Amino acid sequence: MTKPYVLGVDVGGTNTVFGIVDARGQVIACDSIKTQKHAEFDDYVAELHDSVMRLLKANDAEDKIQGIGIGAPNANYYTGEIVNPPNLPWGPVIPLAEKVSAAFGGIPVAVTNDANAAALGEMTYGAARAMKDFIMITLGTGVGSGIVVNGNMVYGHDGNAGELGHLVMKRNNGRMCGCGRTGCLEAYCSATGVARTAREFLEIRQEPSSLRNLDIEEITSKDVYDAAKAGDKLAKEIFDYTGNILGEAFADMVAFTSPQAIILFGGLAKSGDLLLNPIKESLDRNVMPVFRGKTQILVSELKEGDAAVLGASALGWEAKRKAEVSAIAETPA
Amino acid sequence: MTKPYVLGVDVGGTNTVFGIVDARGQVIACDSIKTQKHAEFDDYVAELHDSVMRLLKANDAEDKIQGIGIGAPNANYYTGEIVNPPNLPWGPVIPLAEKVSAAFGGIPVAVTNDANAAALGEMTYGAARAMKDFIMITLGTGVGSGIVVNGNMVYGHDGNAGELGHLVMKRNNGRMCGCGRTGCLEAYCSATGVARTAREFLEIRQEPSSLRNLDIEEITSKDVYDAAKAGDKLAKEIFDYTGNILGEAFADMVAFTSPQAIILFGGLAKSGDLLLNPIKESLDRNVMPVFRGKTQILVSELKEGDAAVLGASALGWEAKRKAEVSAIAETPA
Repeated sequence: MTKPYVLGVDVGGTNTVFGIVDARGQVIACDSIKTQKHAEFDDYVAELHDSVMRLLKANDAEDKIQGIGIGAPNANYYTGEIVNPPNLPWGPVIPLAEKVSAAFGGIPVAVTNDANAAALGEMTYGAARAMKDFIMITLGTGVGSGIVVNGNMVYGHDGNAGELGHLVMKRNNGRMCGCGRTGCLEAYCSATGVARTAREFLEIRQEPSSLRNLDIEEITSKDVYDAAKAGDKLAKEIFDYTGNILGEAFADMVAFTSPQAIILFGGLAKSGDLLLNPIKESLDRNVMPVFRGKTQILVSELKEGDAAVLGASALGWEAKRKAEVSAIAETPA
Repeated sequence: MTKPYVLGVDVGGTNTVFGIVDARGQVIACDSIKTQKHAEFDDYVAELHDSVMRLLKANDAEDKIQGIGIGAPNANYYTGEIVNPPNLPWGPVIPLAEKVSAAFGGIPVAVTNDANAAALGEMTYGAARAMKDFIMITLGTGVGSGIVVNGNMVYGHDGNAGELGHLVMKRNNGRMCGCGRTGCLEAYCSATGVARTAREFLEIRQEPSSLRNLDIEEITSKDVYDAAKAGDKLAKEIFDYTGNILGEAFADMVAFTSPQAIILFGGLAKSGDLLLNPIKESLDRNVMPVFRGKTQILVSELKEGDAAVLGASALGWEAKRKAEVSAIAETPA
């Protein structure tokens, strides 16, 4: 075995993407299966195993996988389980790590939620390579986060730490959030939050806007981005509004763990200065003086396609190391 | 040298308290000097050294001190400096660790801010003994905090992490805070914040209250406590209001690092159920469902007199260990 590999797996609501990754972070080969094809979790694991084995065989890597890392919504690093996933069919508690490890003959498996996996990827291969303290914010359908303190992922006492999309930003009259509460960051600054802001602005305000040519119920954050890029003033103000709230939230995050950088990832993070400028101005205006100018706002350096698999693969190497350490600890002296 | 000791030092605005502490956390002996007697920092360090040596001699411990830990306002763990202290006379940057170590013949010294020292004390000797993830909140003149994640103090990339008294709780029309911003937790939930709430309530509301017999400008949180204890309804509502905001803040803290417990320390923490009940109710009402019922609200188990010295002494042991590790690293093989 000259070249050890790990397997990185990203379990999404629609697709499960997996890749063979080498120690330098090169994705050797990649494939995917449909996540929701099987009503039974065991059947899903069996198909995943078959598909992975095919990919390994095609790449002459059948005996080279040293660890498997999996990022999945609501996956818990400590228990290895997925708990109450919003978009998966296999029940309230899914023994993800245990079943996958068993299917692959006992290869060590580690799991965590998708935002933490992205943060691990960024720390191992991306914009946070030299950093020990940073926060990854994923701006997608929801707002997720991965917090790294002194080089270690923050999991909390129960494995559920890092729900920064659910910091409460509006304590009065806040928008309903998917978590059942009101006023969460996610309700304003996710892609869907931006679309909600657009609908609010269009209803309440009178200015002309190219967004008024669209069906108001169908407006997406991409529509707002396109309009703003084309110079639409109201669309730009929607990004200002979004960036302002993000900056307020980031000021609180800085007071918490004083990260060297906050790194943005996901669809909305591709909005460039349209979003970055109001975020930076708001952070600067809202942050405690002792922290002012100290925290960089960066955009992920990982290709979106690779990021999830790379992040999960970083966890795969960790699973391998942990297995080796416990093997040593169990060896009689 | 049969019994090694460390020295724990707590630099307060008025008194500097120091104690000889053994490995079991027993304070062998304790003394103090006036912090602000000397205009020059070197003179302060000289007096501290003389007083400590006297205490060591009296306890037959002159050669037993292995490390010195110091808790001081705005002290930075990484640089060993006090930076811009609000209540100390010796300039904007005070080289605390360097000068104290030099005065004591090179004994390793570690410093951190007072709230972090309290958290270290709690983790080593107090209510957080078995915990790897907890947050210490000090409710005194201000609101300070020490965050512990996976058994390690969170210092952040610059040593300034853990300013949870400056999470913004009121984004509109918030009270001025000493940090120069508005709406911070500290402006509402410190001892002085409670007194401000009392003044607001007395001015705005009409109900009778025994607090109206006091000079409104002189009311303290202790007055509010005494009135509430005696059954005063308005005074009780002031505690409800304070506890409600603390619970809202704690809900955000739980979403951040998911601590096993939030531990209260300092004057206000002695208010018992008057403050604890509204905090617990508010946390339960405001926290994300996934975390509900998981985080304990506790009161520090350390005697207030000992706590600061014990916390600093825990840092003294850490300074000793770090010095040993770097000595080993520097030893030629």
